[in-house]
Amino acid sequence: MSALAPYTLSKTTKLDYAAAVEAARSALADEGFGVLCEIDVRATLKAKLDVDREPYMILGACKPQLAQLALELEPELGSLLPCNVIVYTADGVTHVSAIDPERMLAVSGNPDLVPLASEVRDALQRVVEQVAAC
Amino acid sequence: MSALAPYTLSKTTKLDYAAAVEAARSALADEGFGVLCEIDVRATLKAKLDVDREPYMILGACKPQLAQLALELEPELGSLLPCNVIVYTADGVTHVSAIDPERMLAVSGNPDLVPLASEVRDALQRVVEQVAAC
Repeated sequence: MSALAPYTLSKTTKLDYAAAVEAARSALADEGFGVLCEIDVRATLKAKLDVDREPYMILGACKPQLAQLALELEPELGSLLPCNVIVYTADGVTHVSAIDPERMLAVSGNPDLVPLASEVRDALQRVVEQVAAC
Repeated sequence: MSALAPYTLSKTTKLDYAAAVEAARSALADEGFGVLCEIDVRATLKAKLDVDREPYMILGACKPQLAQLALELEPELGSLLPCNVIVYTADGVTHVSAIDPERMLAVSGNPDLVPLASEVRDALQRVVEQVAAC
């Protein structure tokens, strides 16, 4: 377990990187999230800058019903969506973290989003814990 | 011009939606951003929920050199990347907005990111203005 940053829900896992990415995809599906985009940060930075770094994946996750409701409440909220789950290795340890939606949606200053953020936070917390428990 | 939300850099444009999306892609390329993901929110919500809404596109933009540097300074920052530019219509008006990176990266609480956020903010401001001026 780790808490590297106060804006993420973070754990370490004994899974290797590839298995952790697969476990994160599976856990997100179990919690009703769709993965709307995947960014392979290592591959992108290798291609663009020819730099080598440890594996790092961003999974952009979204619960469609909640996204629809949130966009009705806050039209510009797409600038903050989707909620990212990241999987990466650092010094040989695999990390899985999710953005804390309560921290991120607080940027909007819209109190109507608080219950939605709380619901998504609970679900992302379970995703991170499910991957860490594998 | 509009300022719908304090966490975005926002303008309206006389372009229609499709032309504004194209102009945003072009302006991002001019400023050295790669578009790492595109989320067609309307199509996604139609497919997942069978709801009809106005057009809404999220373009996930990234400057590779700055992303590389930022991740060295703040390993969990991928949870907040990329920076989104959104294009949507509301009541027949086309809007283009970018997340304000200074607001978003402030979530990290890492002062070392301030100069990077400022540089990205300036570039995204120019992107929004370029689309609005079309």
